[in-house]
Amino acid sequence: MVSCVFPGSFDPVTKGHMDVIGRASELFDHVTVTVMVNIAKKSAIPLEERIQLLKKACRKYPNVDVDSWDGLLADYMAEKKEKIVIRGVRNTPEYEQEITAACANKMLNSSVETILIPTDPALAGVSSSAVREIASFGGDISAFVPQTLIKDIETLLSKKTIK
Amino acid sequence: MVSCVFPGSFDPVTKGHMDVIGRASELFDHVTVTVMVNIAKKSAIPLEERIQLLKKACRKYPNVDVDSWDGLLADYMAEKKEKIVIRGVRNTPEYEQEITAACANKMLNSSVETILIPTDPALAGVSSSAVREIASFGGDISAFVPQTLIKDIETLLSKKTIK
Amino acid sequence: MVSCVFPGSFDPVTKGHMDVIGRASELFDHVTVTVMVNIAKKSAIPLEERIQLLKKACRKYPNVDVDSWDGLLADYMAEKKEKIVIRGVRNTPEYEQEITAACANKMLNSSVETILIPTDPALAGVSSSAVREIASFGGDISAFVPQTLIKDIETLLSKKTIK
Amino acid sequence: MVSCVFPGSFDPVTKGHMDVIGRASELFDHVTVTVMVNIAKKSAIPLEERIQLLKKACRKYPNVDVDSWDGLLADYMAEKKEKIVIRGVRNTPEYEQEITAACANKMLNSSVETILIPTDPALAGVSSSAVREIASFGGDISAFVPQTLIKDIETLLSKKTIK
Amino acid sequence: MVSCVFPGSFDPVTKGHMDVIGRASELFDHVTVTVMVNIAKKSAIPLEERIQLLKKACRKYPNVDVDSWDGLLADYMAEKKEKIVIRGVRNTPEYEQEITAACANKMLNSSVETILIPTDPALAGVSSSAVREIASFGGDISAFVPQTLIKDIETLLSKKTIK
Amino acid sequence: MVSCVFPGSFDPVTKGHMDVIGRASELFDHVTVTVMVNIAKKSAIPLEERIQLLKKACRKYPNVDVDSWDGLLADYMAEKKEKIVIRGVRNTPEYEQEITAACANKMLNSSVETILIPTDPALAGVSSSAVREIASFGGDISAFVPQTLIKDIETLLSKKTIK
Repeated sequence: MVSCVFPGSFDPVTKGHMDVIGRASELFDHVTVTVMVNIAKKSAIPLEERIQLLKKACRKYPNVDVDSWDGLLADYMAEKKEKIVIRGVRNTPEYEQEITAACANKMLNSSVETILIPTDPALAGVSSSAVREIASFGGDISAFVPQTLIKDIETLLSKKTIK
Repeated sequence: MVSCVFPGSFDPVTKGHMDVIGRASELFDHVTVTVMVNIAKKSAIPLEERIQLLKKACRKYPNVDVDSWDGLLADYMAEKKEKIVIRGVRNTPEYEQEITAACANKMLNSSVETILIPTDPALAGVSSSAVREIASFGGDISAFVPQTLIKDIETLLSKKTIK
Repeated sequence: MVSCVFPGSFDPVTKGHMDVIGRASELFDHVTVTVMVNIAKKSAIPLEERIQLLKKACRKYPNVDVDSWDGLLADYMAEKKEKIVIRGVRNTPEYEQEITAACANKMLNSSVETILIPTDPALAGVSSSAVREIASFGGDISAFVPQTLIKDIETLLSKKTIK
Repeated sequence: MVSCVFPGSFDPVTKGHMDVIGRASELFDHVTVTVMVNIAKKSAIPLEERIQLLKKACRKYPNVDVDSWDGLLADYMAEKKEKIVIRGVRNTPEYEQEITAACANKMLNSSVETILIPTDPALAGVSSSAVREIASFGGDISAFVPQTLIKDIETLLSKKTIK
Repeated sequence: MVSCVFPGSFDPVTKGHMDVIGRASELFDHVTVTVMVNIAKKSAIPLEERIQLLKKACRKYPNVDVDSWDGLLADYMAEKKEKIVIRGVRNTPEYEQEITAACANKMLNSSVETILIPTDPALAGVSSSAVREIASFGGDISAFVPQTLIKDIETLLSKKTIK
Repeated sequence: MVSCVFPGSFDPVTKGHMDVIGRASELFDHVTVTVMVNIAKKSAIPLEERIQLLKKACRKYPNVDVDSWDGLLADYMAEKKEKIVIRGVRNTPEYEQEITAACANKMLNSSVETILIPTDPALAGVSSSAVREIASFGGDISAFVPQTLIKDIETLLSKKTIK
């Protein structure tokens, strides 16, 4: 069985994330989507709500589970006995960032492989930070997040000012 | 008539910005330079002063106006019935950033086109953040900002610590 | 009146080129699409046919003309008294290539401005070389070239082996 | 069962290729390494020899097979009912090239996913073209190709001048 | 005598920095490693401790001195009558950042040359920010920092939360 | 004494090359400019003429010598007991190319260090291939090559068609 982990901050989950999850659920036997707690960066949406949004969005994929982790990815992979990290890549800067992180992770846990999944080029403008910025001005986020979560995310972000 | 909008934070306006404005004023019938309010990022210079600096620097271009906007660029373009956004590009990271923003804007307002104007390569080191950093150490900003604004910007930034 | 020149080898014209031409025809008062003769690179399709394909594809745009030039772009711009070169940009390598060419052109003709138009991200995989490669294996080029030219291009490329 | 295809020209196979094959054989249930015939580019080593080199190098991986294809990758994937293409990525230019090819492939066969495997950064200097260049000067290729193939590749390339 | 300056925040010094210092000490007659005070960015480790860590790590290089500076690099170079700045480069984003900074420095002090030293590709994952993040989760930093400083850096960072 | 080698094809030497040579002659005690014979790429100008052009252009630098080599750079460095390779870098693609070559060289001769010298950004459009292309159309190369070589290079290239 080939399983993988898709880590991220999902603040909030976007159509881009769901594009990666959808592909991964087809390619692999099992996918764990893991919300990482980043103690250095304040999130716009609390951890528990980010998990709930993902669970709602992933309900249609029977082989996808949602988890969270307050620690290093390398330790999570060891703890869960997982070997494959997947990361979606939209563009060159994201590629650069992922490759550097992958090298660091490998130094901490040499059994971890990071593989990169290019996202749908039509979603090149979609990111969590774009969603937060649009929401902060009361703009229309419906093209950026999963259909079923639009209301939820609007409500969660209306209580916030973006980072 | 072909008009365009040049949005930015202009914190403060630099020789690089003026290079773009000068070219745009030659290429297009009308240019609106629009100071965007970014509620997520504290500016070094207050909005009103940034507008005044730009107005002073653009006085010589009869077809250039200065404006400001507290909202999304996509909404501004709709409100003003403008179709062309221009952005200066100094280097690859700026290209990447602009292309991603252009894709997001297009999803919010499909009638907006972003076109990129490569800046004079001799100005590759010029940016608002460089000006703020140099000023924070009391350094000489005269090569980085328009001649007529040196004193004004020095005064405005001497009251500040950089971001 | 704001006019521009869109130079290229168009060997053959693709949906990506037409995306740029379509946007340019909306943004500018007049667009000249100019097939450049590159004596250093053998073309898959003869010059005259490349011009005819473009003329057929551009027929629907009243403000678009097709031309050709056997020489330097800088000289063409001077000869035609044009000031704006537009180039479509699909990705970072193309950006890098265009920026370098723009700098060289500027050294030859300082009145020329090159402006970059990001292409539709959904067309990221579309290029003349992809069309030539697909055609060389008898593959289906219909997603890559304008609808009305599919047959013409298939016929022209079936007589060739790709470069 | 999760299987994948690793296509390339392997002219000749390098330690970089074997790094990707080794990882893929651990991550996936089955890996097909497919030598692609590129009719547009003359190879330094004949197809049959490239296949034999790969077979020798892959002997130790029970779940890796070697194949070849004279046509489009998209058609190969359809013919073999495979869904995953893997490609090793050493650096940014290779990432750019792969992402563009992946987009083109997707347009030809929408069921194909390309996933990118970052190669060991210590192998950043290793490529088939480096091997060909070094061999053309009679240099030492032993750090660039699999231990068991050094002699074979030296012999094959000594008969050639590089492209 | 050819001397150079290696400026940075060294927050904390890493194996990557030491790789650059080691190479520079071999290539140049004298190397000054200068800890720059960045008033805009809070450091995780106080200036004095960063200097002490570097001094300890550089003890083995007789031609390397450690210094600090609270001001612009351009002014430091003038003050010290130094002409060469060296910077290690791990990847494309760092290259971009350095090239832009080099252009700005040149505008402030035209006699300064910045030269870039590619770091060992095997250290691609090593950075001060990676060290800070790993330490913040109590992870193992031993692969990222000089052997003799592991304990010191663990102690210093355990008192901090990362930026 | 700190000496370095500046290898290249110099087909022909440009203002960009001279910018690097001028800086290197100031920074290092001695510079050897070495014309590399690339058997895989046909040159526009014969080796002997390329050497003569460089000698003429470097006459003003007492610490610069011109040499040539028909083999691998790694072997040249060993033969000449040189440790430092310098390469000028104009832009990101050149950086990528140099970094990959540096890694390959290091595998062949571990005592060689490659250091990168950013060229004057105002020369971003200058390259040997630009000179060859402009000359092939009878254009004006005077902004691209050293003043004293304009006539020589025009004569040499007028006998050629570009690669």
